[in-house]
Amino acid sequence: MRLEQKLKPKNPEFLKRVHEIFDRAPFIRDIGLKLESAEIGRAVTSLEIKEKHMQQNNFVHAGVLSTMADHTAGCAGGSLIAPDEVVLSVEYKINLLRPAIGESLRCEAQVLRNGKTLIIVDSFVYATQKGREKLTARATVTLAVVGSSYD
Amino acid sequence: MRLEQKLKPKNPEFLKRVHEIFDRAPFIRDIGLKLESAEIGRAVTSLEIKEKHMQQNNFVHAGVLSTMADHTAGCAGGSLIAPDEVVLSVEYKINLLRPAIGESLRCEAQVLRNGKTLIIVDSFVYATQKGREKLTARATVTLAVVGSSYD
Amino acid sequence: MRLEQKLKPKNPEFLKRVHEIFDRAPFIRDIGLKLESAEIGRAVTSLEIKEKHMQQNNFVHAGVLSTMADHTAGCAGGSLIAPDEVVLSVEYKINLLRPAIGESLRCEAQVLRNGKTLIIVDSFVYATQKGREKLTARATVTLAVVGSSYD
Amino acid sequence: MRLEQKLKPKNPEFLKRVHEIFDRAPFIRDIGLKLESAEIGRAVTSLEIKEKHMQQNNFVHAGVLSTMADHTAGCAGGSLIAPDEVVLSVEYKINLLRPAIGESLRCEAQVLRNGKTLIIVDSFVYATQKGREKLTARATVTLAVVGSSYD
Repeated sequence: MRLEQKLKPKNPEFLKRVHEIFDRAPFIRDIGLKLESAEIGRAVTSLEIKEKHMQQNNFVHAGVLSTMADHTAGCAGGSLIAPDEVVLSVEYKINLLRPAIGESLRCEAQVLRNGKTLIIVDSFVYATQKGREKLTARATVTLAVVGSSYD
Repeated sequence: MRLEQKLKPKNPEFLKRVHEIFDRAPFIRDIGLKLESAEIGRAVTSLEIKEKHMQQNNFVHAGVLSTMADHTAGCAGGSLIAPDEVVLSVEYKINLLRPAIGESLRCEAQVLRNGKTLIIVDSFVYATQKGREKLTARATVTLAVVGSSYD
Repeated sequence: MRLEQKLKPKNPEFLKRVHEIFDRAPFIRDIGLKLESAEIGRAVTSLEIKEKHMQQNNFVHAGVLSTMADHTAGCAGGSLIAPDEVVLSVEYKINLLRPAIGESLRCEAQVLRNGKTLIIVDSFVYATQKGREKLTARATVTLAVVGSSYD
Repeated sequence: MRLEQKLKPKNPEFLKRVHEIFDRAPFIRDIGLKLESAEIGRAVTSLEIKEKHMQQNNFVHAGVLSTMADHTAGCAGGSLIAPDEVVLSVEYKINLLRPAIGESLRCEAQVLRNGKTLIIVDSFVYATQKGREKLTARATVTLAVVGSSYD
């Protein structure tokens, strides 16, 4: 896939912003998600898989993969907005390509389309088992860019 | 919408099965989701909203709504399968219709299409604030019906 | 599903507008889609199934069902916008619930969420064979409301 | 994105099969879609944009882009199935990233996950205007692999 747009930050302190999206979200702390890196239009997160993340068949719950895909997408999109804007997920679709098992998860989110009011982001979630990494889920997330006074 | 199919259980102990899908999922216990009721092709769950469920703008995190929508769909679909089968989410789309705020969430999941290998389920998530309930999210979930020896 | 919002038209001549969305779209004429009825936040269309609509297994092509679901959603959403606005589909998901066969198709589109910049619409496509109507596809469409000078 | 699987054909005459999926679909002929190339797990199609493909704002109708994305995905998936199997779209999601205008469209479809019963395919639709090609839509398609006696 060719990405034709050049992505430019509207906020010179965009990295600080991405960290805020991360650090101020209690559910993200509760799950244990970590921000690995961030740049313009892109973010990478990781999660150490624990017993508490599982569903009834001993795979990582789709809700954990979804949270990771959605929040990492929000960070990738959040790197592109102005200081007085916020991003909110309006919809996403996720494909759970294979059961997630192993020691850890890694999510890469990349902006596909940077619009004024809508940002579209692809998130890829990989699971590492015994040193081997496999794509386990892929999501496409639509973020709305709204004023920070959104209510 | 008219649902033309009559839904019949392949497992006479389907209620027990739905409870297992619920009780044996550590992530569901961790989040605090409760099974309110279940019948053939349908399930209802609830969640008391706590600080730990929030994202950075003080709304319930999309990942919480997604987990609820996905897992309740799995319960609705799980009521229809044979004892030696399991349901696994293969994909879903969720629309986050308005920010989720308030005291509690309720999710209703209803099977839209009961196929031999694929079950399609609609999940509606409502948020209650000061006694008033509003639709906050809606998901459509595709479940694969697979043998329990699935690996 | 309970729809909590009351939908109000911003355009007193909204019916004329819906007819324009219909009559001015060459692909819709080419396919043979007909507008059956329209009201605030809702539209119904129909299609006589012909040989030319088929795919390689002699079912109606998913592209025909998609066009119908998308365009009828646009009509439902188009009933709600101001005279100087247009609606554009930004994304949708469609579930093809069973192969579409028979004499005719009917599509009902209903607005699920009427936002200032985004309108979410559900479309249900039914196929009639020998007088019996079955749900064959269901789509959820996100429409962006933009100024008519959109380029 | 890394694609970890090696894709192998189950049908030595897979190219012939892809051509059949193409040539035997009346709606595809009617629209004017052309098969440019096909290989294992991948297909490329093209369309000369004509007046009849337009919607009411003079962009290519989302239904045309959807048909192209869905059918090209079916060809990519169809290259992987056995002679006695067929692929049917069970659901897809499409993002309409920017209005499609110009002289021609090109669609690239690539299998993301090749399962025994479900094949997941990504389709990218590009529009060329005055020699410059831009990504205009992206779809993710779930195909069911079923016996050819499917009814």
